[in-house]
Amino acid sequence: MTGPRTDALPDAPPSPATTGSPAPVPLLLGDLHGSLSDPLLDAMTFLNEVVSRFPDALSFAPGRPYEGFFEPEDIHGHLDAYLEHLRERGLTREQIRGALFQYGPTKGIVADLVARTLANDEGLEVPAESLVLTVGAQEAMLLVLRALCATPEDVLLVSAPCYVGVTGAARLLDLTVVPVPEGPLGGPEPEAVAAAARAVRAGGGRPRALYVVPDFANPSGASMPVPARSRLLEVAAEEGLLVIEDNPYGFFAREPGERPTLKRLDRDRRVVYLGSFAKTCFPGARLGYVVADQEVLAADGRRSLLADELAKLKSMTTVNTPALSQAVIGGMLLRNDCRLRRANARATAFYAANMDTLLQALERHFPEPLRTRLGIRWNRPEGGFFAVLEVPFAADTAALERCARDHGVLWTPMGDFYPDGGGERRLRLSCSSLTPVQITAGIARLARFVLTEAG
Amino acid sequence: MTGPRTDALPDAPPSPATTGSPAPVPLLLGDLHGSLSDPLLDAMTFLNEVVSRFPDALSFAPGRPYEGFFEPEDIHGHLDAYLEHLRERGLTREQIRGALFQYGPTKGIVADLVARTLANDEGLEVPAESLVLTVGAQEAMLLVLRALCATPEDVLLVSAPCYVGVTGAARLLDLTVVPVPEGPLGGPEPEAVAAAARAVRAGGGRPRALYVVPDFANPSGASMPVPARSRLLEVAAEEGLLVIEDNPYGFFAREPGERPTLKRLDRDRRVVYLGSFAKTCFPGARLGYVVADQEVLAADGRRSLLADELAKLKSMTTVNTPALSQAVIGGMLLRNDCRLRRANARATAFYAANMDTLLQALERHFPEPLRTRLGIRWNRPEGGFFAVLEVPFAADTAALERCARDHGVLWTPMGDFYPDGGGERRLRLSCSSLTPVQITAGIARLARFVLTEAG
Repeated sequence: MTGPRTDALPDAPPSPATTGSPAPVPLLLGDLHGSLSDPLLDAMTFLNEVVSRFPDALSFAPGRPYEGFFEPEDIHGHLDAYLEHLRERGLTREQIRGALFQYGPTKGIVADLVARTLANDEGLEVPAESLVLTVGAQEAMLLVLRALCATPEDVLLVSAPCYVGVTGAARLLDLTVVPVPEGPLGGPEPEAVAAAARAVRAGGGRPRALYVVPDFANPSGASMPVPARSRLLEVAAEEGLLVIEDNPYGFFAREPGERPTLKRLDRDRRVVYLGSFAKTCFPGARLGYVVADQEVLAADGRRSLLADELAKLKSMTTVNTPALSQAVIGGMLLRNDCRLRRANARATAFYAANMDTLLQALERHFPEPLRTRLGIRWNRPEGGFFAVLEVPFAADTAALERCARDHGVLWTPMGDFYPDGGGERRLRLSCSSLTPVQITAGIARLARFVLTEAG
Repeated sequence: MTGPRTDALPDAPPSPATTGSPAPVPLLLGDLHGSLSDPLLDAMTFLNEVVSRFPDALSFAPGRPYEGFFEPEDIHGHLDAYLEHLRERGLTREQIRGALFQYGPTKGIVADLVARTLANDEGLEVPAESLVLTVGAQEAMLLVLRALCATPEDVLLVSAPCYVGVTGAARLLDLTVVPVPEGPLGGPEPEAVAAAARAVRAGGGRPRALYVVPDFANPSGASMPVPARSRLLEVAAEEGLLVIEDNPYGFFAREPGERPTLKRLDRDRRVVYLGSFAKTCFPGARLGYVVADQEVLAADGRRSLLADELAKLKSMTTVNTPALSQAVIGGMLLRNDCRLRRANARATAFYAANMDTLLQALERHFPEPLRTRLGIRWNRPEGGFFAVLEVPFAADTAALERCARDHGVLWTPMGDFYPDGGGERRLRLSCSSLTPVQITAGIARLARFVLTEAG
């Protein structure tokens, strides 16, 4: 290695396994079909296209928070609050620079603040080291599914209708999903979960976990009653299931604490808890987290925390969650004394009033006996972002397009939320991103559409 | 649905497929072994543990940028610059609020600025719609691998030694990786790539793509000569391979343009280009991107852009890249007229001087004939962050631990970068995050260690 400057250290020569003539694989063009074309994703893409063609319609479609609470100027204050917090903790200027600008720990830098918030708001005492900060709850789902499901026999149970993010993550991992229908009381019925687990096992599969949104579920708006929560945990223990509890909406309960989270009721670390700051802070930070305090025993006897195993997987998806997002949300938490329920009091009242406005408008436009005669009904969520309307015709993308074009109002067909079909005559109404005036006007338009179609 | 307020719409009852007695699956504890224990990840975790035990050592281990260029106060200015840009483009206050705080388009919000930067800095003219902004280049790798590889026969070729991020992403997707050794001139030899593709095909596999870092590769520091770049593209066409070009370090070339990127040389959209702002801006934003201007033809005849297909997959990993990160990096680009080479002139000079300092120190401590007698050699990268030192003993984690404990200096064993073994006597030296004084002192310590071990 004398002579001219060279930047390569020679390796052993490659074995020149030249075997016959090359048969070039067609580069792309259809060859990608196997992995890329996906009915769910195609449906979602098509849906987004329809929605985007009617930008001026009143939209009950998006599950996004109300924008009126956000002020761009606040970002600076949040960031400064977090930096001040680091200074108060004794970090040097260099260390602060590193925390904000460099690659960070895979599990994140604000786990302590999130743990304190969970304790304050949910009465959930979890060690900070059992937390992994993720790029939205979506990444947390992907990591948990990848960790739990190792073989083609592994099966994920989901309450149906089901949030498309989790069925999407399962599709990315080629993981089998078995739906368990929501019962009349809200959420999956524990005995139905047990039956589904046994059926999977009888068919040679291995039911590993149940995914459930116990509070104000997306898309149904339903919440599990407390006795069903306790029974679900018993069933999970009996059937050897983990429970993946996703809780993006629970913060917006009218009476906090009325329905404790599954994780709060969990006595034997059977619940993996997914959290999100998209609704309590703002979506643009894309900050979520997972509480994974389960102990993992490796084949060689080493014990570890599930959170640490998830972090290893995360090093292969996004390396670490942006420090910027963590710093800004961390600052918001600090400025609110790690109490997001209190910080969201105004938002909670706003969303509750919106839901009331929505339900009252439906009542006004579809009074008895009209609604029974036409076969129109809806559920009455106590809070959250979503309600479901059932109509006497196919509430599909074509219907959505007619409704948008002729009546200027948008909603989400429910069909795509059922992994095994169903919900064809149901539509999801989101009341989170509109004002009461818009909701009232929008339901009036929707009623005209429904009466036209049903007539 | 009259009577008490209920939040559930009843579904059809679940089929009560009760089948025999439940055989509870053990909850966790070893059951996770199959999916979670991974030699690569375990090695990386162990390596990080060793490094973290010696916080005061001089460290040639991390491939992170130098921190001295970062000022926390600058973040505010970057963010404001981006918001001002949106105002100038005519966005209303509501629209700006939405762009910053809400869920955003899956492909990102700053593709236009990134495309302009690529044109200015790399002479790369790509339409903005062929870009997807990702959470670091790591997410881009995961998406591209998932898109290209659909069946168990699909194989990814990688130049070896190889960045662990791509082998890690392949492991997460259970994708087969076949290494192609780097040649003496730097980077994979095109004919070796052809031979490897043919060997894979002869074995019943389907070689889909080659992953390569043509400029200042991590970990080897090697760069591909221009003729090899052109020949590699020919080979890729002959063998039906896509080329995944990862370019985190090319910006730090002493003479920009001397070695065009593969994407620049690409005439038939055979190169998928991965970019990162971790080194040119800062890692804490976790902002990367992929240029995927390939046309995809679905089985039903529909044509689409690979970027749009990647975006569908991204909706299942992170939904969208944090608007915060995009806004701050977008602001940095705007404040630098979308010219990162010029903005990084000071950094480029710093890294080049560091590499010179490193190589000169090695020369000083291991002069001829000493180095030939002991079997010590190293490569001489023209730039970038990494050089490789070969020593006459196993440069493994145990050696690293002795070196850290007895000599106060850290480095990275190369063994883990070879998917099929190799590199056991090589260590990676990163010169990017130290000052010249630290490098000189560190190599003096390292020399004492090497001489002790070799003696």
